[in-house]
Amino acid sequence: MAEANDVQVVIVGSIGLDTIETPFEKRESLLGGSVSYACAAASFFTTVGMVGVVGSDFDDDHMAAYRQFGIDLEGLQQVEGKTFRWSGVYDADMINRQTLSTDLNVFEHFMPDMPESYRDADYVLLGNIAPELQLHVLDQVQSPEFIVADTMDLWINIAHEKLLEVIGRVDMLMLNDSEARLLTDQYHLRACADTIRAMGPTYVVIKKGEHGAMLFGPDGLFIVPAYPVETVTDPTGAGDTFAGAMIGHLAQNGGVSDEALRAALLHGAVVASHGVEAFSLDRLLKLQPEDISTRASELKSMVAI
Amino acid sequence: MAEANDVQVVIVGSIGLDTIETPFEKRESLLGGSVSYACAAASFFTTVGMVGVVGSDFDDDHMAAYRQFGIDLEGLQQVEGKTFRWSGVYDADMINRQTLSTDLNVFEHFMPDMPESYRDADYVLLGNIAPELQLHVLDQVQSPEFIVADTMDLWINIAHEKLLEVIGRVDMLMLNDSEARLLTDQYHLRACADTIRAMGPTYVVIKKGEHGAMLFGPDGLFIVPAYPVETVTDPTGAGDTFAGAMIGHLAQNGGVSDEALRAALLHGAVVASHGVEAFSLDRLLKLQPEDISTRASELKSMVAI
Repeated sequence: MAEANDVQVVIVGSIGLDTIETPFEKRESLLGGSVSYACAAASFFTTVGMVGVVGSDFDDDHMAAYRQFGIDLEGLQQVEGKTFRWSGVYDADMINRQTLSTDLNVFEHFMPDMPESYRDADYVLLGNIAPELQLHVLDQVQSPEFIVADTMDLWINIAHEKLLEVIGRVDMLMLNDSEARLLTDQYHLRACADTIRAMGPTYVVIKKGEHGAMLFGPDGLFIVPAYPVETVTDPTGAGDTFAGAMIGHLAQNGGVSDEALRAALLHGAVVASHGVEAFSLDRLLKLQPEDISTRASELKSMVAI
Repeated sequence: MAEANDVQVVIVGSIGLDTIETPFEKRESLLGGSVSYACAAASFFTTVGMVGVVGSDFDDDHMAAYRQFGIDLEGLQQVEGKTFRWSGVYDADMINRQTLSTDLNVFEHFMPDMPESYRDADYVLLGNIAPELQLHVLDQVQSPEFIVADTMDLWINIAHEKLLEVIGRVDMLMLNDSEARLLTDQYHLRACADTIRAMGPTYVVIKKGEHGAMLFGPDGLFIVPAYPVETVTDPTGAGDTFAGAMIGHLAQNGGVSDEALRAALLHGAVVASHGVEAFSLDRLLKLQPEDISTRASELKSMVAI
């Protein structure tokens, strides 16, 4: 039952200050991290609570940005020390990137304890953090309607057992194509998805970056292309934005079905396409609902036969 | 006006005997070449005439394969000498490949002279051959309804001026994403397509291999994903198969419109997805109309929102 300060969607993940270099520009100490992008994206569709950690150096401006999206911050921990920092450089294709440095800082001892008011949220997105922390969240929630977990190659390699435990307890696993291949030791994505679904999740979403995403579930396969933007300024966080908008849209529409998931993935692709047009959350901060609905209509017409 | 032995679609291109090595298998002297794949694919939808050249070593079995598809062979030249040969090896991803050898043989002096009965064909596909030869075909045809040209990086690099002349005289240019970028010196595919359309063609199709294809035209953008096959045995000729099925489907439906092109691209993707399931034309030789319609329905439902 929703109370006054309750949130429909809870998202857990990393908060980072990113230094990003593209072939065109270098920017420092940008607000980033999986939960920043995902919560901002979800906020366009529903009420969302953030579970994450920042240090004492975290700018008021960044807090103000979260508030501007209307994100509930009761689950945001601020502790003594420095905020997690990441820096990376993109190749000329603006797709592949190298990590230059990762400083965990306060994230090293992060424990995603959830406020009481978050525990009965209907929709939970476990952003890309250590499987052990994702499990800690799963231990606190009270039978949500839908749980999505994101992951990455790092956890497949160094926390395989814990990750399998997460995968066995969620409704949807979301990962990119190379990660799906790494996890399953299969090449073709349908085979990868079949293998993952046999591990537990009813649904698997395989993200293919600029080529869109594929949803595998009991009702078959759905393919959504990426919305083709004219200019990609910074692709960082696009997958998190996609995931956040997807779960937000599902929550807004109040139920999980093949039809609802297709619409949710389409909206994920749309909000992600806006997000990459600027660094950090800059484009999302200016995004209007009509920008989303315009591109959603366009993307629908781009695939109509 | 269609006469008894007239063909609706004329396709010109290369005929080769291919030696292909994949991570799983090596096969020698396979029937291949752009016009072989494209004519076979088009034959499922309409009457098609082949313009190409083979040597005196060309097997009767290969001729029999062409006849099994019902391809009109009046435009097929057989001359003294050896047939064009190509050999290549695929990477583990079954997408990237290296050419090991190319022996032009009789293809070196090929001149695509068209039989009288082909010159009033309504649909013409200029397969991937030297732009000079494509121009020779354009000089012989009598105002076809729709002309499609395929090309490749080689011609962009070594025959740029002639290629621009071809591009200025066709209704649709078809090329893959890296070639579109090379031709236009732009990165984002929408910008590439805008630049190419400004060179003349009303339509541009950008092929993205396993990620499908995009159609750019006066009615906007259409994106069709590749049909996700369980097993890719040999991707050679997939682009030619796609092009052939596309123009064949257009001809069958008797007119070019945004709606007709969308359906034609879908069928191109479907027939190409069958083709890659075996070496050479082997899968296409066994393909039934209901195999095509089944996958077309499936692919439609995979993109439905």
